[in-house]
Amino acid sequence: MNYSIIRYIIGWILRFEGIFLLLPFLVSLIYREECFYAFPVVSVGCYAVGYLFSFRKPKDTSLYTREGFMSVALGWIIMSIAGAIPFVINGDIPNYVDALFETISGLTTTGASILSDVECLSHSGLFWRSFTHWIGGMGVFVFIMAILPLMGGSSMNLMKAESPGPSVGKLVPRVKDTAKILYIIYLGITIAETILLCCGGMSLFESLTTSFGTVGTGGFGIRNSSLGECSTYVQIVVTVFMILSGVNYTFYFYLLHRKFKSAFSIEEIRWYFVIIIGSILLISANIRHMYPTYGDALLHSGFQVGSIITTTGFSTTDFDLWPQLSKTILLILMFLGACAGSTGGGMKVSRFAIYTKTIRKELSMLIHPRAIKKIKMDGHSIPHEVVRSANVFLAVYCVIVLFSTLLLSIDNYGFTTNFTATVATLNNIGPGFDLVGPTQNFSIFGVFSKFVLMFNMLAGRLELFPMLILFYPSAWRKHQ
Amino acid sequence: MNYSIIRYIIGWILRFEGIFLLLPFLVSLIYREECFYAFPVVSVGCYAVGYLFSFRKPKDTSLYTREGFMSVALGWIIMSIAGAIPFVINGDIPNYVDALFETISGLTTTGASILSDVECLSHSGLFWRSFTHWIGGMGVFVFIMAILPLMGGSSMNLMKAESPGPSVGKLVPRVKDTAKILYIIYLGITIAETILLCCGGMSLFESLTTSFGTVGTGGFGIRNSSLGECSTYVQIVVTVFMILSGVNYTFYFYLLHRKFKSAFSIEEIRWYFVIIIGSILLISANIRHMYPTYGDALLHSGFQVGSIITTTGFSTTDFDLWPQLSKTILLILMFLGACAGSTGGGMKVSRFAIYTKTIRKELSMLIHPRAIKKIKMDGHSIPHEVVRSANVFLAVYCVIVLFSTLLLSIDNYGFTTNFTATVATLNNIGPGFDLVGPTQNFSIFGVFSKFVLMFNMLAGRLELFPMLILFYPSAWRKHQ
Repeated sequence: MNYSIIRYIIGWILRFEGIFLLLPFLVSLIYREECFYAFPVVSVGCYAVGYLFSFRKPKDTSLYTREGFMSVALGWIIMSIAGAIPFVINGDIPNYVDALFETISGLTTTGASILSDVECLSHSGLFWRSFTHWIGGMGVFVFIMAILPLMGGSSMNLMKAESPGPSVGKLVPRVKDTAKILYIIYLGITIAETILLCCGGMSLFESLTTSFGTVGTGGFGIRNSSLGECSTYVQIVVTVFMILSGVNYTFYFYLLHRKFKSAFSIEEIRWYFVIIIGSILLISANIRHMYPTYGDALLHSGFQVGSIITTTGFSTTDFDLWPQLSKTILLILMFLGACAGSTGGGMKVSRFAIYTKTIRKELSMLIHPRAIKKIKMDGHSIPHEVVRSANVFLAVYCVIVLFSTLLLSIDNYGFTTNFTATVATLNNIGPGFDLVGPTQNFSIFGVFSKFVLMFNMLAGRLELFPMLILFYPSAWRKHQ
Repeated sequence: MNYSIIRYIIGWILRFEGIFLLLPFLVSLIYREECFYAFPVVSVGCYAVGYLFSFRKPKDTSLYTREGFMSVALGWIIMSIAGAIPFVINGDIPNYVDALFETISGLTTTGASILSDVECLSHSGLFWRSFTHWIGGMGVFVFIMAILPLMGGSSMNLMKAESPGPSVGKLVPRVKDTAKILYIIYLGITIAETILLCCGGMSLFESLTTSFGTVGTGGFGIRNSSLGECSTYVQIVVTVFMILSGVNYTFYFYLLHRKFKSAFSIEEIRWYFVIIIGSILLISANIRHMYPTYGDALLHSGFQVGSIITTTGFSTTDFDLWPQLSKTILLILMFLGACAGSTGGGMKVSRFAIYTKTIRKELSMLIHPRAIKKIKMDGHSIPHEVVRSANVFLAVYCVIVLFSTLLLSIDNYGFTTNFTATVATLNNIGPGFDLVGPTQNFSIFGVFSKFVLMFNMLAGRLELFPMLILFYPSAWRKHQ
């Protein structure tokens, strides 16, 4: 393990976090908040420590997969530890563990909260809380790569560790350019949504925070009722942008380059839309009797399906009161998640497609043992590596779900609560069912359980392996 | 697909079922039951149809994996359809769908019941209900192979489809001899338990039925309280025999041949006992406050752990009232299941071992990308085929769990009920939690849900693929 390169990278992460923290400072100045010093103090601290860490470029800049995974895992943890401090200083969240939970939930775009009343938070706190979604959505490493020519070619190993999905493709030959394009699209969608929300009569502040939560597929809002009290126009805009944010960004890249045929032939995106439309129709028929008109049922169903499959976690209604069928559909969508290469979490539609195809292949091999079959996606056969790693992913995923549910059960809440809390954090969704349902929050859990949930959120955002590697002793050995 | 060989095999299955049905007839004569004709009528019917089917040996006796899987799947379904009829005739279970549910639950050694009062059943009915566990435990195809030189070499493909576990090994070169040895051990354990139970003052009838339920890892009892009212001696005997029945039968084969070193070096068995002891200790500490002495807590914890990990499903206490931690441990044991090559269900300890080793290998490959590692078990490296099929198994398993939970949710019961009903049937356990807990039964579900649960039980017992193949259209094509 090349520790000096990890130190160097983490140094840069902290420097960038120092800069990011100036934004909520600006907000606190605009709203003339008393405790305006919380953010700049931490900002300066982050920048200083980051500067010390990254002052000297290491001689050995070799960055293999292990260093990539380790940097990303440690980078995200340290970023969260630092990002939580302002909440304690300005009194928004006096308990540090809770502040850390909230920050990790923000950065991993989970949106699970320990707060029962968000409306009493300071403007700067609310802004930072939502802005962490935006940073975490596309990824801070991707951001740094877009700006700095950090490591040259081997920075692919960082991108591999931070980007969601079973396989990471570069849109253009250079990693830096790929990162830049991704951030430009990301920024474009954010601005578009903010403008549309402002047009609907929402304040600029709320439009911005809502857009951060939508485009990063996070789910933190600035109201206790999430988006329940917003106008139909706003709910429709957010629904559309949630669903758009769950789309593989390669699609937008093709659109920008007018390669319409390539864009619409991405198999994953077709699966994604078929699943969304099917779920909306099923649920709206199932909840029809609970709402005055079919339009209302359709609106709520569309919003919740978009919110859950993209792992955003906003809500317009208490879907924990829906019939069990609708709730189970939502639960399955929680596992499924959004497209690979989007800002959404979950197992990703493309992995689901790989599993389906693997099963079909296995059945067909039982019938025609001598036939040679390859699993194909978008017309190309999927490399054996990708299939294998998707399979191992599933095994790790199941193990984490079971263990996390077990560890949470020490607090002695019901099975539905523990299981859906696990699923909602591991898939970076936010609300679950029962005691962690959309009108509830995660404050009921003890400190130990909160750490388990924090692990889930980080593991889910970083696609399991970077977090697991921290627990693998031989990974820490210096010479290998 | 060679349909004539499938017809021929199913014919033999029915003939044997006809003979098996004479046993409950004998019981009805002993107890001078009014409705003594229920079993002989069906017995004669089965034998006659079976005779017609297997009268002419097919010219083409080729039996590939596909024919093996199809015969086993269809064989089990037809056996259940016929085996359910006596319950309707003698009035024990007047509703045919319920009778079918009970028979499938028996044959697959699940032990999930739709009856709220089993004590009102006729003796012959109770006997048949428990005897189906014994038939299904080691497998009816294995039984036939032990007696008839059915197909020569290719009967391995039948055994492969019916035997539990990721890979099937022959104990001795000939399939017929392997099947014979398995049944001799099976019979030996059954007789030993029956004698020990009789020594504890249990009637011969109850000792027999309890032994069928234990050794077949089924779980049907003849009392409404399962084994709750039995003496401590009986509970301990059953605990020991449940745990012994979950052991890979290769272990007993080695013991019989005095190969003690080989016997105790089977890795799966060491995992199995470590998991059992760990779970018993954790649970007994967790439930200590609910029972007068530590001994009581240990007894109940040992019994329930043995019952759940071997997927038997007997109970001595209502473990649904235990703290959530103990319940979650039991739930994880439900998934885990017993050893491969035992009569128990679940995913099997050896598959779990394969997953753990795959995950460790993947992590180590991230750290040492150029190292070549093989997954080993019992000192030998596991063939790629076995690892791949264990991975596909997991994917299919997860898909079935999610889909079954979804389909059950139409009945609008809670998530814990639907999820644990799925897990308890798919792993052939019996009771789940909440509305399908140990003191409850499965009668609450509608007809559609009952069919879903029946599918789960058969899929679980036959290790998923034989049942899946029925839904794969091209499997039914005659020429391929």
